[in-house]
Amino acid sequence: MTDQRGMLYGLGIGPGDPELITLKALRILQSVPVVAYPAPEVGDSLARSIAAPHLSGEQTEIVIRMPMTPGNFPANDAYDRYGTEIAGHLDAGRDVAVLCEGDPFLYGSFMYMYQRLSGEYRAEVVPGVSSLGAVAAVAGRPLVSRNQVLSILPAPMDEEELEQQLAKTDAAAIMKVGRHLEKVKRVLARLGLDGGATYVEHASMPNQKIMPLSEVPVDAAPYFSMVLVCPGEVGGG
Amino acid sequence: MTDQRGMLYGLGIGPGDPELITLKALRILQSVPVVAYPAPEVGDSLARSIAAPHLSGEQTEIVIRMPMTPGNFPANDAYDRYGTEIAGHLDAGRDVAVLCEGDPFLYGSFMYMYQRLSGEYRAEVVPGVSSLGAVAAVAGRPLVSRNQVLSILPAPMDEEELEQQLAKTDAAAIMKVGRHLEKVKRVLARLGLDGGATYVEHASMPNQKIMPLSEVPVDAAPYFSMVLVCPGEVGGG
Repeated sequence: MTDQRGMLYGLGIGPGDPELITLKALRILQSVPVVAYPAPEVGDSLARSIAAPHLSGEQTEIVIRMPMTPGNFPANDAYDRYGTEIAGHLDAGRDVAVLCEGDPFLYGSFMYMYQRLSGEYRAEVVPGVSSLGAVAAVAGRPLVSRNQVLSILPAPMDEEELEQQLAKTDAAAIMKVGRHLEKVKRVLARLGLDGGATYVEHASMPNQKIMPLSEVPVDAAPYFSMVLVCPGEVGGG
Repeated sequence: MTDQRGMLYGLGIGPGDPELITLKALRILQSVPVVAYPAPEVGDSLARSIAAPHLSGEQTEIVIRMPMTPGNFPANDAYDRYGTEIAGHLDAGRDVAVLCEGDPFLYGSFMYMYQRLSGEYRAEVVPGVSSLGAVAAVAGRPLVSRNQVLSILPAPMDEEELEQQLAKTDAAAIMKVGRHLEKVKRVLARLGLDGGATYVEHASMPNQKIMPLSEVPVDAAPYFSMVLVCPGEVGGG
């Protein structure tokens, strides 16, 4: 007996430019009856805005509003509640696509939904262009080659740990810089790596900015910003 | 005076499934008069096979055949020669798209062409879905979340260095496993990380394989294979 229930998709829709969605994600996006996407507690969903040019407006939409309270992450109650809502559609035989900025499994909140539902329902993850590739592309800076090590480091991590990680790698992408910019600058300066580092925010979006890290005001970085430290600059490189 | 010369594109065409190309890469691929792609000294080009369903056959094609002689990498003479050939098309006003498996700037050989030509000619890099995202997607294994560190480690690296890198990260993707599988298994076993590691080869392609690392025969890994060590298994996780 085949499974008559709906399929759960985690759709990587790319880093921001609606043209950086894959053919596969677009096909699924336009064929499912139900589309879900994360959003802040108040305000617009970035994922929906990326997908907007591809949506007909005739699909059922689930806005996954997530409280961003520090210390309450991931917000298990909210994920449970939205998981139940999505499961209702799956049980009724309707496929559900959850939109994911960048790639679903690289710092994506989709994993919390996947953990809840993939044991019970058929699920497929469609990989997407990550902000990592987009940042390197728009900055014109190759990340790594040959046998070089690339470390992907979230800026909110502990300062000492960040410094240790940076000291032992060939290249680094420091993600989610936002209000941690001053710390990132301080650590890179201590390691003598601040000179060549590149800062990028909103890569591939209309409000994209690219500049040397040294020129970024410390109070100005949004959450979707990244600092690249490329080979030849880092200790091991 | 506008630049009448052609534009150089580095096109990320994704990890293998032709449907994992982006709308942007497809548009450029189908609009340029000249398409170039890497290939081994003898045999077919993987990049061309990924793009094949999207090619009309009416474009000029440049096969960038690269000697893979160890110790002679990157093959500067060959890159110089192909760079000159591509520059000839650009000088004549013809746009040239260089096809890149995965993402152009993540271990892509395109960077050697970019270094040679981007100073002189207009150049744009179109990011693509990397094998990293594809491997995690098909394995159903989220890579990292929140403040976790992800290390991208090329398997050919020195064994001691590989062990040190693995000991201080939350999650790792060990790339280009191939003939280094035995070494990778040995290092992960010493760190007690072999039990939960996942092996994937040719992610998103018809010959894709996914299995626990422990089940892979040591002499059986192709170049395009990867081992994922995910959070909760690694020391820091």
